[in-house]
Amino acid sequence: MPKFLIAGTVAYDSLKTPQGERPRILGGSGLHAAVAASILLKKINLLSVVGGDFEPQYLAFLQKRGVDLRGLKIIKEGQTFAWNGFYEKDMNVAHTVQTALNVLTQFDPVLPPEYLDSAFVFLGNIDPALQTKIFAQLPARKFGALDTMNYWIDSQKENLLKAIAETDLLFINDAEIRQLTGEDNLFRAARVLLTGRLRYVIIKKGEHGAMLISAERIAIVPSMPLDEIVDPTGAGDSFAGGFMSYIVEHASTAYPQDTPLSAGGMDWDTLRAALVYGTMTASFNVQGFGCEKLAEITKADLDERLKVFREITRIS
Amino acid sequence: MPKFLIAGTVAYDSLKTPQGERPRILGGSGLHAAVAASILLKKINLLSVVGGDFEPQYLAFLQKRGVDLRGLKIIKEGQTFAWNGFYEKDMNVAHTVQTALNVLTQFDPVLPPEYLDSAFVFLGNIDPALQTKIFAQLPARKFGALDTMNYWIDSQKENLLKAIAETDLLFINDAEIRQLTGEDNLFRAARVLLTGRLRYVIIKKGEHGAMLISAERIAIVPSMPLDEIVDPTGAGDSFAGGFMSYIVEHASTAYPQDTPLSAGGMDWDTLRAALVYGTMTASFNVQGFGCEKLAEITKADLDERLKVFREITRIS
Repeated sequence: MPKFLIAGTVAYDSLKTPQGERPRILGGSGLHAAVAASILLKKINLLSVVGGDFEPQYLAFLQKRGVDLRGLKIIKEGQTFAWNGFYEKDMNVAHTVQTALNVLTQFDPVLPPEYLDSAFVFLGNIDPALQTKIFAQLPARKFGALDTMNYWIDSQKENLLKAIAETDLLFINDAEIRQLTGEDNLFRAARVLLTGRLRYVIIKKGEHGAMLISAERIAIVPSMPLDEIVDPTGAGDSFAGGFMSYIVEHASTAYPQDTPLSAGGMDWDTLRAALVYGTMTASFNVQGFGCEKLAEITKADLDERLKVFREITRIS
Repeated sequence: MPKFLIAGTVAYDSLKTPQGERPRILGGSGLHAAVAASILLKKINLLSVVGGDFEPQYLAFLQKRGVDLRGLKIIKEGQTFAWNGFYEKDMNVAHTVQTALNVLTQFDPVLPPEYLDSAFVFLGNIDPALQTKIFAQLPARKFGALDTMNYWIDSQKENLLKAIAETDLLFINDAEIRQLTGEDNLFRAARVLLTGRLRYVIIKKGEHGAMLISAERIAIVPSMPLDEIVDPTGAGDSFAGGFMSYIVEHASTAYPQDTPLSAGGMDWDTLRAALVYGTMTASFNVQGFGCEKLAEITKADLDERLKVFREITRIS
């Protein structure tokens, strides 16, 4: 199995949704992606930062899931990044009460030597200058994917475009890609970005599903119908983590280590299947607070739900 | 082929979209549905009303498409229902400049004798009291479908619920079903309505596709990816017209005339295929102003696009 690196935030989230509330539970883009990816993969390299308040039980939890913590910097005198927010009836909109960046302001993403040959990379939503800095340490990577958010489009568009120029695949939501490109039509918006190394754009549409777009092809997958959303936090991160884990698992057999994927591109059917796997993963993520539901399930649960999903989306 | 009745408005639309403008072109819920359905079906019974200003060339156009006009009342001293509106960049939102109901206020939906044995019925968006009045004239109908809009939910909710109690299938959009039921979750919202005769709800989500929901099952279809929307007017009506035409065409062989479909329900695979056909039909509708694009295409065009759509939505 090739090495897979996830970089992103590890956070304490304090959440309130119509289904209840939870103070200081595990959250963050890197955390959700890593927990999601560890359903399929035995080993994940995590690059992130936490403070001295980060509980040992959480370190043990991650280690047990095969998350390598040599890249998790613990700044003892600092506090872990913390987000406090709530959702009302329309759970597509997160309302922020408070964001305390804390140790995140000191995050210097230097890869430990053991991570330097990571072939697959997912960079969760962090400062795009840091994303570029991570890619720069991985000149031989096979396949990099990057997620972002509207905050960086507003405040650091140039840096974000630089980071995007270094990635093979971009995760972005529908509002963000419209904002970034000025194009209202999502397919035209994706094609504005598809130049240079960037070969694939995945547009996340929340409850409306996701679309994978390359210069030549499109794949569209609706989201899994659910009667109840408990907590949408981390849906996009777990989607990306699930997607990437499928790519890593299958690329290891489909592609010999010495073939740069970015040169020839990725097999379309693998990407499409990964899109569906990411969708299944995210559907479990939102059925519990934080990553509590993801932490309970196995590959068998994903596969079982996939059978139902196939029947729902089958086109005869 | 069993008889198929479409009731709804026939209108003069004056439109402006980012792609151009058209004064006084053919529009209306009944018109869009009838033009859409006539791609598959050789004969459609139309029940509607127009004024003395309705041009003979449009009557000839409809007749040529197999639309029976014995149910199209012409009130010579009146003016045809007219809608004047525009769309901005976000074409999900129609902005109304002026609505002139004109002869629509005198619409008394009495079926001509030749329509009274219509087995399949689609009632486009009109006053729900009139919808109920039409259903009452068709006690032996096999399968009725009904569309509505937020205006009637606001102003005539009780009458609308009465009309819904008489239909087998309800077309409604996501915002409307939330408004009508007070349920934010679309699957729960559909189940609130699924009692009595109503067995199927189709939730239209515009660019995000459509969902067919019964008490036991769900089918989800995304919309066809398009680089450009010329005019979204009538998308929902043409979707319903395309859907119903597929049902009528296939029900004629699958169900003998003397089996009431409402008793045993419709074959799920036929409904699901109709959902896809409606999606293809609507995708052509929005590629031209009014119904100009629909009027150009044939079943072969729908089938060709369907092949592309299958590839885009295939889940391996």
